[in-house]
Amino acid sequence: MSTPNNFHLLLFGATGDLAQRKLFPALYRAHAHDLLHPQARITAIGRSEPDTAAFLATLQQQAQNHLADDFNLQTWQTFCQRIDYLMLDVSQSQQFDVLATFAQSSDTVIAYLSTAPRFFADICQQLARVGLNTPNVRVVLEKPLGNDLDSSRHINAAVGEYFSENQIYRIDHYLGKEALQNLLPLRFGNPLFESVWNKDFIQSVQITVAETLGVGTRGAFYDRTGALRDMVQNHLLQMLCYTAMERPTSTHSDDIRNEKLKLLESLRIYTPAEVDTHAVRGQYTAAQGMNAYLDEADIAPDSRTETFVAAELYIDNPRWTGVPFYLRTGKRMAQKQAHIVINFKTDPHNPFAAVANRLTISLQPDETLTLRLNTKRTGSGMQSAPADMVLDLAAAANGRRMEAYELLLLEIIAGRLGLFNRRDELEAAWHWVMPLLERWQDPSAPAPQGYPAGSWGAAAAQTLLARNGDTWAENT
Amino acid sequence: MSTPNNFHLLLFGATGDLAQRKLFPALYRAHAHDLLHPQARITAIGRSEPDTAAFLATLQQQAQNHLADDFNLQTWQTFCQRIDYLMLDVSQSQQFDVLATFAQSSDTVIAYLSTAPRFFADICQQLARVGLNTPNVRVVLEKPLGNDLDSSRHINAAVGEYFSENQIYRIDHYLGKEALQNLLPLRFGNPLFESVWNKDFIQSVQITVAETLGVGTRGAFYDRTGALRDMVQNHLLQMLCYTAMERPTSTHSDDIRNEKLKLLESLRIYTPAEVDTHAVRGQYTAAQGMNAYLDEADIAPDSRTETFVAAELYIDNPRWTGVPFYLRTGKRMAQKQAHIVINFKTDPHNPFAAVANRLTISLQPDETLTLRLNTKRTGSGMQSAPADMVLDLAAAANGRRMEAYELLLLEIIAGRLGLFNRRDELEAAWHWVMPLLERWQDPSAPAPQGYPAGSWGAAAAQTLLARNGDTWAENT
Repeated sequence: MSTPNNFHLLLFGATGDLAQRKLFPALYRAHAHDLLHPQARITAIGRSEPDTAAFLATLQQQAQNHLADDFNLQTWQTFCQRIDYLMLDVSQSQQFDVLATFAQSSDTVIAYLSTAPRFFADICQQLARVGLNTPNVRVVLEKPLGNDLDSSRHINAAVGEYFSENQIYRIDHYLGKEALQNLLPLRFGNPLFESVWNKDFIQSVQITVAETLGVGTRGAFYDRTGALRDMVQNHLLQMLCYTAMERPTSTHSDDIRNEKLKLLESLRIYTPAEVDTHAVRGQYTAAQGMNAYLDEADIAPDSRTETFVAAELYIDNPRWTGVPFYLRTGKRMAQKQAHIVINFKTDPHNPFAAVANRLTISLQPDETLTLRLNTKRTGSGMQSAPADMVLDLAAAANGRRMEAYELLLLEIIAGRLGLFNRRDELEAAWHWVMPLLERWQDPSAPAPQGYPAGSWGAAAAQTLLARNGDTWAENT
Repeated sequence: MSTPNNFHLLLFGATGDLAQRKLFPALYRAHAHDLLHPQARITAIGRSEPDTAAFLATLQQQAQNHLADDFNLQTWQTFCQRIDYLMLDVSQSQQFDVLATFAQSSDTVIAYLSTAPRFFADICQQLARVGLNTPNVRVVLEKPLGNDLDSSRHINAAVGEYFSENQIYRIDHYLGKEALQNLLPLRFGNPLFESVWNKDFIQSVQITVAETLGVGTRGAFYDRTGALRDMVQNHLLQMLCYTAMERPTSTHSDDIRNEKLKLLESLRIYTPAEVDTHAVRGQYTAAQGMNAYLDEADIAPDSRTETFVAAELYIDNPRWTGVPFYLRTGKRMAQKQAHIVINFKTDPHNPFAAVANRLTISLQPDETLTLRLNTKRTGSGMQSAPADMVLDLAAAANGRRMEAYELLLLEIIAGRLGLFNRRDELEAAWHWVMPLLERWQDPSAPAPQGYPAGSWGAAAAQTLLARNGDTWAENT
């Protein structure tokens, strides 16, 4: 490994949940594995702690919880030597003056905005005012970046006034998952798969992200967000991009992002009537001792917010003409699963084929590739029977598997933009989402279909596929 | 399962090594698993035991050895109730008269000739004489069926005088291996593989059957036979057929055998000069405490018999133009392995490909499919690294895996000819073998190259591949 880049991280929202639960543990692990430059420093910025000592005391408690067995006190103490705390109220612009000193550094400065998005524009303006928007500065934006196309454009435009696009790292933590990134070498590094990855061989594609948890303590946020914005607009459409995009010329960031953009721009945009026939929304009801969504804390009594979405998408380009892509996500579902299922075509008259080939790319609970093949059924005679060929990516890795945030932080430090959403991509994703969002805001639209907590979601999601002769691959 | 066919088995050579070591244990296992018709009977025919009691006493000793944990005394005793012993000298034609009684049966009669091939013609003649060549009679012939094209034709013609081709089951026990049979559903039941199984995607194919044993007590037989006749003419060319044949219209026996024949007829036949450049013969020398071949029992002191063969074959048809097929077999090699390796092409400019795809179909020591893929190398960045996707056929079988002879016997009982060599196939295989056989009988030809016992064979076998930029996949 070459020496990692030196950097100074300004972490806004350092006392917040994400920073405490994910970002500091990720930075600690990178430190513990010698992946950070020896001089790299972290300025934790927040409002709720008075000074460095108090901040580090709280942080250590959190870290011990979240790092569990990975926590080592001695290593932790060397990690803490990198950290200063700065009390700063981002709504008070003059308080940014103190940051001007960092503008003198020629090293990479990373301004990580782990705050509510409504502060993004102001923080960027203030950073620029104190000289922190020179080319050595990178700004990292956490989602949600707006709640519709307009507000997303607004944030992007505001940030874009002070930073050029190649300084901006928009986080979608699903892109930090190696089992998802693996789709690129899997598809483009293996002629065996590349040659069949198209409408001639593929019958349908299913992308599922199923959670077992309910909305928990996030009711107020979730009730004004819903599954479409929270999951589909970002994670599921990104999974779709990796599954269906054309071959990039190289592994360089913009070559990959250009192909993702092209894919998103090829999505068929639905009319309100098509939304009703091609998309399903659901809301969980009480079952197995679990509350109904409507009975969770901070949910409006007549809320029509969806906790489940299923949709049938079409990609109008030569590779995918006519192939349905099914997306599905929900809370309070039967199992925690994230996977992409490629259903290949089969010929019912083929005497050697008992089943259709199926490739399952699992991101959760395991990182595995499973290829269902026809093999000879054991015993005399020449019948076929299905059998699974398996690759456990984590086991094959033969090295430490990083969590998404650690990997994304290292990419930011290395200055590689490939795993971060470009503005045009993000807006193209919103472009597909908007008709669903608008239709579902219409009081005349069908209400979300109830589904029992702990089930596989709204029954209409089954009908959606049954119409094409397909079924969800729930138990892969 | 439907009721198995009733049959009467006449087992010639019942006191011989193959019958005692393989055939009776196979029949016992089929019996123990209820795969034989309740009335099915076995007449064991031999010279060296006086009566049924003596025969069964010896047989039980052998069975206990060979069946090991599968031997159960009570089951054995019920099995033995199926068996009568008949003392008969096959060189005394009048002794066959006693068999005339079996000709009255309308059930299937199976005459299994587990004798030296020089008796085949006479036995068939006598069977016919006593009325045992009616359509309900099947005759099973063990290899070797001749020691060159002419003698093979001679035996086939003699047997063919009394039996029609669809009554004749010529054994190649490699065809009883399910991991080999699996090539048909693998290739033709999976569009994923079928679409790349040709010269556009495949760089080269390697077929290896490596034994660690020497000639042991079979020196006299082996010294007049050699690896080309003992292994290549039958087992390796059959493995090649399953790997490279065109798609059969159905799973019916003659549809499969027609395609094997077409494949063998497409093999490029070598001139004597081409034999020298496309084939290698070797003979093991003393190493690691193991004797040289020339020092084994019953070997001629100046023997040029090959204990190792490697050859580069070409199939002159549209699917395989220009793709080298490498065959290799030997005694006293480094490991006991039987496998087929499909090396796919790769593009050195592909940024997503660290290695070429490779499918390894292992028959021994394990029955596995291993597909080497490019995956994302663990960690930040977008490099590729190889990883293996694996299917353990025996583990996936979820049922008892039969040994080759049991499976072949059940196929004979069921009257399915697909796993048995048709006359024209066998002769086409000899047709490819003959130029090598003839060239190597020429004293002016290069002598077999010595290779140390326990190695991977003659060094010239490496050179054979190196010329095309290939290497043997020894450690898959």
